[in-house]
Amino acid sequence: MSTTVTYADVEAAASTIAGVAHRTPVLRSSRLDELAGREIYLKAEHLQRVGAFKFRGAYTALSRIPADRSAAGVVAYSSGNHAQAVALAGRELDLPVTIVMPLDAPELKVTATKGYGARVVTYDRYTEDREVIGAAIAAESGATVIPPYDHADVIAGQGTAVKELLEEAPDLDVIVTPLGGGGLLAGSLLSAHALSPRTAVWGVEPEAGDDGRRSLEAGEVIRIEAPRTIADGAQTLYLGSLTFPIIREHVTGIVTVSDEALVDAMRVMAGTLKQVVEPTGVLALAGVLTGAIPIAPGSRVGIVLSGGNVDLARYADLLSRARE
Amino acid sequence: MSTTVTYADVEAAASTIAGVAHRTPVLRSSRLDELAGREIYLKAEHLQRVGAFKFRGAYTALSRIPADRSAAGVVAYSSGNHAQAVALAGRELDLPVTIVMPLDAPELKVTATKGYGARVVTYDRYTEDREVIGAAIAAESGATVIPPYDHADVIAGQGTAVKELLEEAPDLDVIVTPLGGGGLLAGSLLSAHALSPRTAVWGVEPEAGDDGRRSLEAGEVIRIEAPRTIADGAQTLYLGSLTFPIIREHVTGIVTVSDEALVDAMRVMAGTLKQVVEPTGVLALAGVLTGAIPIAPGSRVGIVLSGGNVDLARYADLLSRARE
Repeated sequence: MSTTVTYADVEAAASTIAGVAHRTPVLRSSRLDELAGREIYLKAEHLQRVGAFKFRGAYTALSRIPADRSAAGVVAYSSGNHAQAVALAGRELDLPVTIVMPLDAPELKVTATKGYGARVVTYDRYTEDREVIGAAIAAESGATVIPPYDHADVIAGQGTAVKELLEEAPDLDVIVTPLGGGGLLAGSLLSAHALSPRTAVWGVEPEAGDDGRRSLEAGEVIRIEAPRTIADGAQTLYLGSLTFPIIREHVTGIVTVSDEALVDAMRVMAGTLKQVVEPTGVLALAGVLTGAIPIAPGSRVGIVLSGGNVDLARYADLLSRARE
Repeated sequence: MSTTVTYADVEAAASTIAGVAHRTPVLRSSRLDELAGREIYLKAEHLQRVGAFKFRGAYTALSRIPADRSAAGVVAYSSGNHAQAVALAGRELDLPVTIVMPLDAPELKVTATKGYGARVVTYDRYTEDREVIGAAIAAESGATVIPPYDHADVIAGQGTAVKELLEEAPDLDVIVTPLGGGGLLAGSLLSAHALSPRTAVWGVEPEAGDDGRRSLEAGEVIRIEAPRTIADGAQTLYLGSLTFPIIREHVTGIVTVSDEALVDAMRVMAGTLKQVVEPTGVLALAGVLTGAIPIAPGSRVGIVLSGGNVDLARYADLLSRARE
């Protein structure tokens, strides 16, 4: 694995995933445009394989493992979607997969991960360090660790979503993505900078987990305690050593949104677009609808809907929450 | 209005709605195919304008009103989606619209109908006759009545959905649609018979409202009491004088499904496809997943998802219902 990532790597990843990952649709809605006061282009990664953009990076990374290391398999740690993505990529590429997941990961995600044939090892996200556990398994078995975001091939793979978005909607004024560990945002920045340098690119993270915004302000990676938020896919504690430099160099800004704003955005997606999107998946949309991101009225705005994997009971509970 | 309908009318309707109605996508899912044991092609009419196929027929019918009658406007009676469809079509064509709706129509549908600028008049679906109310308004104002299904232009317009489906997936073994008053099923039969005569076409109605199945058996239109079912779009009391002859001539069969099967199908749509579909909208899918329709394993099956308009609180309540 190289320690820098460029748009050429995104292009290579696009070739690797072609015909394996879905080229997801870009959804439009006149009612959403009216509501937002902007032209909204939704890159529908909740319709990606495994229900999240994570498959792009996982498949890219697993495809790059040298033949002499593939038999030992791979190990990954994840709050959910990366786990499913590595599990499915492993099944497709015939590599044994072990996943280290938090004890409180959504049941749906645990079941799906096991369904793809992966072995699942659990840990307590509030007291244990998943990287240490993953590293121990790798040391013992010789498996290759596939981190969820701080990995050149993963970043390159995630960048293919915004590459496709800009190919379909080339004249976007603004692109907005969710921000957890920064894999999606860093990859998106590489694609946007190469294909449409004038396009502003924003990241959106949950209020409770604002390490990205603080890191950008501080000029160095800030670590936080495990944040309590319904955006379980953005409960990361710090940006990566590969993702942060890319974000710092190219990002227009990072904003935060409340869990209540995420619920509102999920309701808009269900009621107006008829789409089921998970809390983390609407971070970028919430950043636009709340006005947290300064965007001129009438602008053309690309939004990455990053995932749709949510327990239906939990989803129903969130949808039925009344606002004051 | 003519009293017979042919595929030529469907073709004319397709020209009328081109560029106004959405050409909705045909959704595919390998996980759904595995679950169903068949290749499933979902015609996504929940993504149609107003969130239901009804816009096709309403826009077609309103477009055919002669200029000397258009100023007096139109009146329609509907449990919901037809109302929204006529309201939007009226706004687009600049015709005044009055809608007669049941008192217990979903709040979302009432609000949306008013939002399109229509006047709403309510009635009690268990004690009053909406046709009588609609006819009285028409007699008084000179407005043209646009019935929800028993109207040649409406049937022709609804037929465009399956026309598009067969253009995209020309080799279907089976096509399945929801059945209420028969506008969608009759229009679908005209398209299927013309474009793919070998394709079997089935209608699916709620168990509590099995007038279609009974009418087919009896060889004449059977009237029932207002059925209690979560499929509020299929609470019709009888097939139409135009729809029944078409259905009797061409349909392969009519089956029923329980409300519980509808909830199961809605959960599959949300969990696997990430799509919000209303109870009536999954009638056809439920007919396939329950095995109510005899379909050989491996068949290519087209399913019309007819609508996605459901109050989010009610939707959340349905999703969270546990099965025994």
